[in-house]
Amino acid sequence: MADSVRTMSLVGFMQASNVTVYSGAWRHPDADPGFLTAGYYQRIGQVLEQGCFDLVFFDDRLAMPGIYGDSVAETVRTGARTVKLDLSVTLGVIAAATRHLGLGATYSTTYYPPFHVARTFATLDHLSAGRAAWNVVTSVNDAEAQNFGVDVHVAHDERYDRADEFLEATFGLWDTWEDGAIIGDKASGTFADPAKVHELNYEGKHYRTRGPLTVPRCPQGRPVIIQAGSSGRGRQFASRWADLVFTNDHTHALALAHYQDQKAQVAALGRDPDAVKVLPLVYVVAAATEAEAAAEEHRLLEELVDPMASLVLLGEVTNLDFSRFGLDEPIPDDFLDTASGIRGFLDGVRAHLPGRALTLRDIAAHRATLRSSPRFVGTGPQIAEEMEHWLASGACDGFVIAATHLPGTFEQVVRYVTPELQRRGLLRDRYEGATLRENLGLARP
Amino acid sequence: MADSVRTMSLVGFMQASNVTVYSGAWRHPDADPGFLTAGYYQRIGQVLEQGCFDLVFFDDRLAMPGIYGDSVAETVRTGARTVKLDLSVTLGVIAAATRHLGLGATYSTTYYPPFHVARTFATLDHLSAGRAAWNVVTSVNDAEAQNFGVDVHVAHDERYDRADEFLEATFGLWDTWEDGAIIGDKASGTFADPAKVHELNYEGKHYRTRGPLTVPRCPQGRPVIIQAGSSGRGRQFASRWADLVFTNDHTHALALAHYQDQKAQVAALGRDPDAVKVLPLVYVVAAATEAEAAAEEHRLLEELVDPMASLVLLGEVTNLDFSRFGLDEPIPDDFLDTASGIRGFLDGVRAHLPGRALTLRDIAAHRATLRSSPRFVGTGPQIAEEMEHWLASGACDGFVIAATHLPGTFEQVVRYVTPELQRRGLLRDRYEGATLRENLGLARP
Repeated sequence: MADSVRTMSLVGFMQASNVTVYSGAWRHPDADPGFLTAGYYQRIGQVLEQGCFDLVFFDDRLAMPGIYGDSVAETVRTGARTVKLDLSVTLGVIAAATRHLGLGATYSTTYYPPFHVARTFATLDHLSAGRAAWNVVTSVNDAEAQNFGVDVHVAHDERYDRADEFLEATFGLWDTWEDGAIIGDKASGTFADPAKVHELNYEGKHYRTRGPLTVPRCPQGRPVIIQAGSSGRGRQFASRWADLVFTNDHTHALALAHYQDQKAQVAALGRDPDAVKVLPLVYVVAAATEAEAAAEEHRLLEELVDPMASLVLLGEVTNLDFSRFGLDEPIPDDFLDTASGIRGFLDGVRAHLPGRALTLRDIAAHRATLRSSPRFVGTGPQIAEEMEHWLASGACDGFVIAATHLPGTFEQVVRYVTPELQRRGLLRDRYEGATLRENLGLARP
Repeated sequence: MADSVRTMSLVGFMQASNVTVYSGAWRHPDADPGFLTAGYYQRIGQVLEQGCFDLVFFDDRLAMPGIYGDSVAETVRTGARTVKLDLSVTLGVIAAATRHLGLGATYSTTYYPPFHVARTFATLDHLSAGRAAWNVVTSVNDAEAQNFGVDVHVAHDERYDRADEFLEATFGLWDTWEDGAIIGDKASGTFADPAKVHELNYEGKHYRTRGPLTVPRCPQGRPVIIQAGSSGRGRQFASRWADLVFTNDHTHALALAHYQDQKAQVAALGRDPDAVKVLPLVYVVAAATEAEAAAEEHRLLEELVDPMASLVLLGEVTNLDFSRFGLDEPIPDDFLDTASGIRGFLDGVRAHLPGRALTLRDIAAHRATLRSSPRFVGTGPQIAEEMEHWLASGACDGFVIAATHLPGTFEQVVRYVTPELQRRGLLRDRYEGATLRENLGLARP
């Protein structure tokens, strides 16, 4: 590997679901329907490891989309993220079939207590020998609240205040065992040193926990923290806590500005900006020839997504019920502005169709998912060239690669793109470190 | 296998911990110290599978013992269940290394919401191809409440009222997808049949959940339900919900009475008594000769348990702080009677030392754990004879076998006892069914 170029971090973006983040995924002719079997997830993990990815990371949502028409019927019919498996079990089976790949899961600070999250990820870190990562989300969705028996969802900024406390408690629990606390002297009967295992007695406004954690300090010291908040408060939160910031900007220019702003905020808090990786979500459509890739892109954009699946999913992230509008009615801005969910998503739709009022058909035009993120489409060298441009221009430290179908997308990336990135010295050709942190070049806390 | 005899169910009892239920386990010369690695749990799973066990099942506790002296210091020093890993990750790695063995985990109805528990076990059932079991506990411990930021623990009978609701909600969520709901027609874009996936809209006094679950109906229909309540209310609860009842009576006579009472209560609710297996906890110390087994028993009873570890653990189950008494003071009955924890445990200690007031030394006499359950000690034929007696006399449908050290106990059972049970036609010599329910002889709900 050349010394003069910076290598990139690569993350495979997953859902433990019948689909990927691309809602037409299950309909792809090459899509494996085995999403309820261990072998499906294990094979994907092995493909990513073969391609020298740092990490596989799973999105989560604690409810079936049920906002459109106050019903799950269209979700069930179109397969719009109808299935979401538990991630700790899923990562356990992948851990057993891989050796180097990082293992990331989304857990919500709104619906799980700190002790549970701290214990789950510390366990995963031990049983995977140092490969655990937690994607911190604060949850955004009425349907989730209804599954957990909670009436009113807390407001955006208050969610982050609670999440700050949640992370203080969780980090505190992970640090309740010092390194080297276990003695294990069978003869004297001294299992561990009481001077190195501490109660935490965390008392926040929203959370309390006594500790110590029932899991010794984990191989990475702490699991890797992933965060994806893009609002002002979200970026501030990420600057304080994240090791990896997962972004979703639909142009290079936006990604460049986001990268610079995020790194500046990290530095302003006194942290080393190099210790926080900023990784944009991108779709990759790789093929042997440019023509094959273009044909595949056309199929993905025009053929496989049911418009209703797009509306169902957009209802999820905005908490808006679009069933009250006809397809060609302009949608009033004051309706869209009631959205309590992920900010910036609707701005992206508006930016894609500037200068006129949005109709439901615009939003549902089979396209929202793939069009809201950058797409790298082409041969291995073409895609590697684009990735090198983003990296060298300071728009990212690597990429979170979204799949259009499984395991096909990742198999194609590994077949066509990985060797080209390695040839350019932009990607490792073997794993250097023993843990995920080491492979990411991050210090052990 | 002979047709004339009834075969038994065998369960391996585990903790994802530095110790087994026997608190001296980590000090045993042959104990593997690898309890923070995946390979440790996978090897144990493979040993049990080799021995034709139905199930491995993990106990849990959501706190490090911290009642003795209001401190964890003695827990840390003596290794008295100091470590407790997350079970969903642990079972995920075991699932990946085994094919037939059932995979059971304890989850508390007090600290987890129904949606989370339903999703976790449905996922485990899919990814293990039909091998999941849930041990329902209502939690008993102040230290757990403190880790989860809860002040006052709910009273014994109210916990079961809440647990009834919890199970209604969980069973309801598991049934939100009918069998055959998934269509998966890529051409028409119909993923599943909306007429076969239902909202639940459960509204209890304590729990609400909308559903549907985000996991399709699982291979076993529902995961196997394990329950261990031995109080009046606990037996009633088990009669309604359990597939396996896990008991802990320290004599054959008590086990016989418990078995008959439990089966009668099951029948009184209109369920088939044969569809509910009653399995007592037993320690097994198996060796090539009677003398070796006796020497091993002596070591276990007299050498490996620190008395302080016994007091720490007894404090856990009773919620009593024994640090206020000297070792040889009689402990007042009114102090013992304030115990809010597992009923019957102290009665067992009293029965072991009848006719006088208990002192702390009595309770801590290195013996509580092993002496509170039956022990089968000897050669393979001797132990098989004892097990056959219990089975044939109607005291059980099989056994939950506790380990004194790992993986040694289970290796010895498989080496010495399994072949003898098979020879007598009391244990399968290969797995007959595709799922845990089928191997247990239970119908798919």
